Amino acid sequence: MVIVMAAGATASDIQAIVSVVQSAGGEAFVSRGVSRIIIGLVGDVDRFATLNLVGMRGVANVTRISAKFKLVSREHHSQRSSVRVGEVSIGPDTVTLIAGPCAVETPEQTLLAARMAQAAGATLLRGGAFKPRTSPYAFQGLGERGLRILAEVREETGLPIVTEVVGAHDVDMVASYADMLQVGTRNMQNFPLLQAVGSAGKPVMLKRGMNATIEEWLMAAEYIAQRGNLDIVLCERGIRTFETATRNTLDISAVPVAQRLSHLPVVVDPSHSGGRRDLVLPLSRAAIVAGADGLIVDVHPDPDIALCDGPQALVAEDLHVLARTLEDLAGFMGRRLSTQRELLAG
Amino acid sequence: MVIVMAAGATASDIQAIVSVVQSAGGEAFVSRGVSRIIIGLVGDVDRFATLNLVGMRGVANVTRISAKFKLVSREHHSQRSSVRVGEVSIGPDTVTLIAGPCAVETPEQTLLAARMAQAAGATLLRGGAFKPRTSPYAFQGLGERGLRILAEVREETGLPIVTEVVGAHDVDMVASYADMLQVGTRNMQNFPLLQAVGSAGKPVMLKRGMNATIEEWLMAAEYIAQRGNLDIVLCERGIRTFETATRNTLDISAVPVAQRLSHLPVVVDPSHSGGRRDLVLPLSRAAIVAGADGLIVDVHPDPDIALCDGPQALVAEDLHVLARTLEDLAGFMGRRLSTQRELLAG
Amino acid sequence: MVIVMAAGATASDIQAIVSVVQSAGGEAFVSRGVSRIIIGLVGDVDRFATLNLVGMRGVANVTRISAKFKLVSREHHSQRSSVRVGEVSIGPDTVTLIAGPCAVETPEQTLLAARMAQAAGATLLRGGAFKPRTSPYAFQGLGERGLRILAEVREETGLPIVTEVVGAHDVDMVASYADMLQVGTRNMQNFPLLQAVGSAGKPVMLKRGMNATIEEWLMAAEYIAQRGNLDIVLCERGIRTFETATRNTLDISAVPVAQRLSHLPVVVDPSHSGGRRDLVLPLSRAAIVAGADGLIVDVHPDPDIALCDGPQALVAEDLHVLARTLEDLAGFMGRRLSTQRELLAG
Amino acid sequence: MVIVMAAGATASDIQAIVSVVQSAGGEAFVSRGVSRIIIGLVGDVDRFATLNLVGMRGVANVTRISAKFKLVSREHHSQRSSVRVGEVSIGPDTVTLIAGPCAVETPEQTLLAARMAQAAGATLLRGGAFKPRTSPYAFQGLGERGLRILAEVREETGLPIVTEVVGAHDVDMVASYADMLQVGTRNMQNFPLLQAVGSAGKPVMLKRGMNATIEEWLMAAEYIAQRGNLDIVLCERGIRTFETATRNTLDISAVPVAQRLSHLPVVVDPSHSGGRRDLVLPLSRAAIVAGADGLIVDVHPDPDIALCDGPQALVAEDLHVLARTLEDLAGFMGRRLSTQRELLAG
Repeated sequence: MVIVMAAGATASDIQAIVSVVQSAGGEAFVSRGVSRIIIGLVGDVDRFATLNLVGMRGVANVTRISAKFKLVSREHHSQRSSVRVGEVSIGPDTVTLIAGPCAVETPEQTLLAARMAQAAGATLLRGGAFKPRTSPYAFQGLGERGLRILAEVREETGLPIVTEVVGAHDVDMVASYADMLQVGTRNMQNFPLLQAVGSAGKPVMLKRGMNATIEEWLMAAEYIAQRGNLDIVLCERGIRTFETATRNTLDISAVPVAQRLSHLPVVVDPSHSGGRRDLVLPLSRAAIVAGADGLIVDVHPDPDIALCDGPQALVAEDLHVLARTLEDLAGFMGRRLSTQRELLAG
Repeated sequence: MVIVMAAGATASDIQAIVSVVQSAGGEAFVSRGVSRIIIGLVGDVDRFATLNLVGMRGVANVTRISAKFKLVSREHHSQRSSVRVGEVSIGPDTVTLIAGPCAVETPEQTLLAARMAQAAGATLLRGGAFKPRTSPYAFQGLGERGLRILAEVREETGLPIVTEVVGAHDVDMVASYADMLQVGTRNMQNFPLLQAVGSAGKPVMLKRGMNATIEEWLMAAEYIAQRGNLDIVLCERGIRTFETATRNTLDISAVPVAQRLSHLPVVVDPSHSGGRRDLVLPLSRAAIVAGADGLIVDVHPDPDIALCDGPQALVAEDLHVLARTLEDLAGFMGRRLSTQRELLAG
Repeated sequence: MVIVMAAGATASDIQAIVSVVQSAGGEAFVSRGVSRIIIGLVGDVDRFATLNLVGMRGVANVTRISAKFKLVSREHHSQRSSVRVGEVSIGPDTVTLIAGPCAVETPEQTLLAARMAQAAGATLLRGGAFKPRTSPYAFQGLGERGLRILAEVREETGLPIVTEVVGAHDVDMVASYADMLQVGTRNMQNFPLLQAVGSAGKPVMLKRGMNATIEEWLMAAEYIAQRGNLDIVLCERGIRTFETATRNTLDISAVPVAQRLSHLPVVVDPSHSGGRRDLVLPLSRAAIVAGADGLIVDVHPDPDIALCDGPQALVAEDLHVLARTLEDLAGFMGRRLSTQRELLAG
Repeated sequence: MVIVMAAGATASDIQAIVSVVQSAGGEAFVSRGVSRIIIGLVGDVDRFATLNLVGMRGVANVTRISAKFKLVSREHHSQRSSVRVGEVSIGPDTVTLIAGPCAVETPEQTLLAARMAQAAGATLLRGGAFKPRTSPYAFQGLGERGLRILAEVREETGLPIVTEVVGAHDVDMVASYADMLQVGTRNMQNFPLLQAVGSAGKPVMLKRGMNATIEEWLMAAEYIAQRGNLDIVLCERGIRTFETATRNTLDISAVPVAQRLSHLPVVVDPSHSGGRRDLVLPLSRAAIVAGADGLIVDVHPDPDIALCDGPQALVAEDLHVLARTLEDLAGFMGRRLSTQRELLAG
């Protein structure tokens, strides 16, 4: 921690800070400049943070230096992690394709979408039973009935399920069906939910809040990790900017930046980023070569009648192009496409 | 609803849309321009919204015209509403001051802050027992113990309590102590929470999401209203922009804009907007003359040792200046300061 | 300047920095923490800035402490400044109303608008002869012919003229007509233009860039000041955010923040901020009580046929309401409305 | 153009609009819905735009349908264009690498950087002689002396020169040295400059404003095109958002979006987007597979002593990795790396 003193700070202001820091068990080193004085603190930063140093007389600003997140930080864990969902791996050696319908609507639509996804190389099935929607008049998902449909489709296809949970009170119920719990963009700072999924014993996909900094995203992951669950996959899905040509602005830089700061895998959602089918393929390619550990894409057997986000869902032909592309680019990046039974085979 | 056709749209593309709309019980009016064709739809817009018209061949874009929110809209409810919390009114005739500590820390600190608030004309006591914090290593609030402290302070002072609830599962418990439930900025789109507070039988203060448009904010209010609760007060608390000199950017225009779109009262939080004590007074003045129905401000008997947001908390002297200012500006706006017993007196 | 060293920095990394700083005539003070080392520099910060310290081995980050702007800073000039335009003052004692048409269209329209402005208490006439427009197909202004119209209207009314200049090559010509040169939002970082108006011998109104931080705005003012011209008035006119209900988001906090950092006067443009006539009055009130030293508003005798920004122009009735409001709120703020002949009278 | 009428619009309001449109030589088609009336206009949209329809009684909003840009639009020019700079092509068949120092500092540094660039496959040399800098105390470039250095280095290496021009008055002088004129992010809406480069007879690289929408960017290109110059290359260089981990946020989606809307080539600047050397390579890969027609990157023989943007400049080793990568990914995208003498050879 570094304290910069204001222009008019007095000797007694400085002494007061030194005393407060010492009484909190720390040490304070004073450096005097021509027009400014800075004080470097050594000791328990979390304890210093409770001292409200910034409010003391003569203080211009206080900068915290040590990392704000510890468990998910790469600082003390330099090797990048893999997360297993069923027998599927998400991590630095593979490119994992997660695909499925934005919303579970019927058993038939879900199974068709899952077959499409599987034919194209997807090894995990995404599908929403609880849909957080901006308007209360929009389709809100089938709820637990949707989860039962997903479980049946898993039986048929063998694809593990990734599905969203929207409230702490639902975590146990959703976890009884799901292989991986998804926390959506609107819930990235729903802290009771983060704590609940941290205790649920299932891997978690944490979407970045549409207005969250990368640091806040990693702090949200830290909430999950703190409850003992380090099986966390970060998902970049676009941030909100002034640009209106796309639904959100995919922050492609967030992939390498998050991977440098954290050991957790990072996947990209090209469907929600752009909100347009014609952007899914270019954004998917970009994501893989930026270093993403996987993709999560919307597919639908008939997007024209989709109850949710039809305009961005891929159809079968698109998916085959995507699959071939991913295979090529995974190779280029020194990775392989993740397979459904890789752990058994391995 | 208006459909604009793409440049190359064919007669059969148009006929297909007309047929789909008619089969949904609506009517479609086709207007042909030199280079474009537009189709106006009449009928059940919510049903049209399920047709995925934007995905049909030849469609360039689809614009929804009728309001997306109904219950909270001013379109069919032109008179502005008042909301009562205990015996205190928030609405178009008054300026209501809500004040208290950001976080409940101890019975003494809370009572002192409440006395400060009351002496300065506040008629509602704010105070957080559940604190959503970006870092899992920051103080998270006292939980139910904090609510009991608030209830005791209400006994002492007579001030009704406004306090935050952070999860749907906690709503009944928090409602058993609180006079008004606050939904915080990070939870503006926590839909299970919105629905739960909509059913809780207590008035609600809905803070704007730090990245939410005004339309999304009103849609979130519509979620609460849909469960039968129209006692909603909107709270503007700053949005996230590229500017870093302030914690958030107070969107002062949101006050008149939201009041034109909705009949609900709108209050402003000048403390969290700026994140700086020196901005609370100018932003408070600006809020009142922009038409805000009240203010919610952080106060603390000793901000230097506050566990949360000390740098923005007002101290006693500030509060007296604020109180005199509000009285003058309320008069200027043709309002009166709300009083603690106004309903009894009235 | 403070250097924070990375976790693995070695003794020789540190020694290298100390040597580089010393060879640049500075001193470096090393403070060692448990997990980090910081180095405080004393000396010529501008020279340090050329050393690329951040690129040296072992450096995590470098923070500059001393102010980036000097001439416009309040740090060494604690009294707030007034700027005179003709006989009119803009500064801490007054509220100055600047009004006029967005664009000069005809002599009649300009004179009518000026009479409207004057009747309502405006003491400076704004009007654009050079209009920077997003589309090359939109009306671009009358150019020098517009300036001649403005000069004639000044003859008739006695109102000094504020008008925009859009290129360095035009500064002398525009300055030969104008009493105050306006630099628009799109040109806030047009550095040759800033330097040219800095040498033109006329006061300058510097609009904030719609995406500029307050710090960048003050740096742009510093460019003008560096050429010897300190008669600069800052104008907050809204920033670009994700909100679409308003044309821009008025950053009301920028008024007190800029006034704390700089001694220059700050005025607000409520017309371009909101882009809506119905917001001009509430935003004007907010601006004055936030401490603005004046307002600049669009007026038009017949907005329905305005060639530019008609939807935000005030008409005569609005202006009278605005004028009475300003008088009341100026008094509330301990100021008086600026008058056209105040300097003669004073 | 489509006009949506407000809820209470009367028959005479509608008739007034129909009359105004007809008197402007257009036709108006009225469609009546249950709660709304819409009017579709056919005729000269630019003329309609001068009618201020949005200000007429009873109008809720007006939407313009036909494209706002014509000359640079892909609507009437479906084949993507190539732009030639000297003998080098930028367009849909190639990937063109533009590299060089951010700022020209000395003849030696510039020649070394050019040699580095050339060895790595760059076919155009970038280098700034006029540097727009946020602070007036930062290095502002060598001016015309820098241009002479660039011309000498072109003599030595055969690399055509891309260099920035910052004012309309300088265009002829800069064009007398440069092979391609660059308009920087801060000048994207410097309309006199756009018009001047439109008349200068040299190809132009137009950087996106850091806060500009894609539509505004294309409108800025239209300003250049309107003066008769269609040799325009668009350059995405990152936009300003709330994220602070990167200098700007590279809007990777802007590449395919701009290419769908316009026939002009689009290149990406990965150096200024991220502002960090470690992001240049991943962002470069992402740009190519998103469909970019080229890259423009900062290189420096010794970034530690660079006078401008050293932290983002590539050094020799980086450049070789980049070159190999581009070759592979160009092939993957069905393109070839552009060569220095391709037009002679072809």
